[in-house]
Amino acid sequence: MIDQLIARIQKTNAPIVVGLDPTMKFVPEHIKKAVFAEYGQTLRGAAEAIYLFNRGIVDAVCDLVPAVKPQIAMYEQFGTEGLIAYQKTVAYCKQKGLIVIADVKRGDIGSTSEAYAVAHLGRVAVGEKTYAPFDADFATVNPYLGSDGVKPFLKVCQEEKKGIFVLVKTSNPSSGEFQDQLVDGRPLYEVVGEKVAQWGEACMGERYSYVGAVVGATYPEQGRILRRLMPKAFILVPGYGAQGGKGADLVHFFNEDGLGAIVNSSRGIIAAYQQEKYARFGEMNYADASRQAVLDMREDIAQALDRR
Amino acid sequence: MIDQLIARIQKTNAPIVVGLDPTMKFVPEHIKKAVFAEYGQTLRGAAEAIYLFNRGIVDAVCDLVPAVKPQIAMYEQFGTEGLIAYQKTVAYCKQKGLIVIADVKRGDIGSTSEAYAVAHLGRVAVGEKTYAPFDADFATVNPYLGSDGVKPFLKVCQEEKKGIFVLVKTSNPSSGEFQDQLVDGRPLYEVVGEKVAQWGEACMGERYSYVGAVVGATYPEQGRILRRLMPKAFILVPGYGAQGGKGADLVHFFNEDGLGAIVNSSRGIIAAYQQEKYARFGEMNYADASRQAVLDMREDIAQALDRR
Repeated sequence: MIDQLIARIQKTNAPIVVGLDPTMKFVPEHIKKAVFAEYGQTLRGAAEAIYLFNRGIVDAVCDLVPAVKPQIAMYEQFGTEGLIAYQKTVAYCKQKGLIVIADVKRGDIGSTSEAYAVAHLGRVAVGEKTYAPFDADFATVNPYLGSDGVKPFLKVCQEEKKGIFVLVKTSNPSSGEFQDQLVDGRPLYEVVGEKVAQWGEACMGERYSYVGAVVGATYPEQGRILRRLMPKAFILVPGYGAQGGKGADLVHFFNEDGLGAIVNSSRGIIAAYQQEKYARFGEMNYADASRQAVLDMREDIAQALDRR
Repeated sequence: MIDQLIARIQKTNAPIVVGLDPTMKFVPEHIKKAVFAEYGQTLRGAAEAIYLFNRGIVDAVCDLVPAVKPQIAMYEQFGTEGLIAYQKTVAYCKQKGLIVIADVKRGDIGSTSEAYAVAHLGRVAVGEKTYAPFDADFATVNPYLGSDGVKPFLKVCQEEKKGIFVLVKTSNPSSGEFQDQLVDGRPLYEVVGEKVAQWGEACMGERYSYVGAVVGATYPEQGRILRRLMPKAFILVPGYGAQGGKGADLVHFFNEDGLGAIVNSSRGIIAAYQQEKYARFGEMNYADASRQAVLDMREDIAQALDRR
């Protein structure tokens, strides 16, 4: 799957992943009005609203980008109805030819991580039958529990030809509280980064491993160091746009071959129509605003890579 | 809610939480046969099977223990049908007077953690209405992202009078890989433990904080240190029984007042009938075996606390 991701990045010339993190305040009024008329102001109604909102964006950007990253929390907050919308979103994106990175940040002790890996990337047995419950292509994984918590994901990835991105240095302001603690003079995220490189060695695609890392765009200096420490790991880079990461910050996350990173933008793309810059599209044409935001982001990254 | 948890521990004289982590191989044949006859070998069938299995155990132990801890991964592996079974399990346990600790190990950047907190402990707005999607009493939280990722849970806990248990030192063999890394001469789990104590100061019940910690029974020495470091934090102790933790190991997790810890057992209780020790109950009476396993665990802990 990492090879497919790379092929699509090269085909689209866009190392971009669109974060499908819908909230009700991003959903245009005309969608809310229609679904509430049908389902009422219910969890089902909210779930339908975010699913329809997603579909609009996916239709508008699917030829421009290789991948999407639904953040499952945004669906989980609407309970099981929300998770049905999540599942439908994953299926719709795959049908549109997009690679789906499930931003689930799961991680637990061995037997439990195995259940999560099965849920999001694998297949579960029921009697003599098997089912692929959520069936994403990649998942994000929290490493706090160590190898035990990560290895069940690797096993499923090997079987299913899928991949993971392990949290190494996250994009949020307080990520340093534990991740930057110095261990023998170097920050914990480097220790985790080395483990990612090590786990990834047995999980190679053609040029890159299918064990990747999450490193926030908001920490470009750390990105530069981690890029060298994990040369074969693809880096999923959140924090561009709304969280403050800029195009120029991104160059450190890429290798000399122009590959090795894929940059996420969520709000900056899916709620573009709410920004002054894209207000001209209007709420009805929210998806066109998203398309323009992707084009602008592609240009921003290309320019930054050209300038380096 | 922490005060209610303490009151129920005192009433039952059992600092025990039953881990509702069902897998298909724990579910007795007669339950599987009945649900597969009705729903086929489908995800719905699996979900109904684990829900019925849980009900049997809950009915058998609800007068003996204060709380249950469903591990959501075991439900998530059956997709949205499994999560409906999870939701029904939470509701059924609460109806039976049990406190529900959602073992979800969620944690993300601020806005995303907020969505998780809302999903599992709080209420979400849809138009002018609000809903409590999963509505547990406590949730487990992964601290790797730092305060940003934890504080949204604290906010919801304050509003809803609920609580969290933050992963500090987990029970699995490789938990030391990152958690034991030395930071200025002391392990990272102590740094996290201090943070738990600090977050908990503003979140006090009568005697204990509703910001608790997860510390594995498999690491009693570390439990002793953490007990002192977080005197007001209730410790949720997994790893007893099947994972190797023994009664004698547990004494360090309790304060002098006999409180401060609640010990989880999952397989050791819910799959007791599959152990030689409880085989006499037979598969049909699996719930009676679970009841006996709870009685034995209560005795084991009481003896260990008496001996100290």
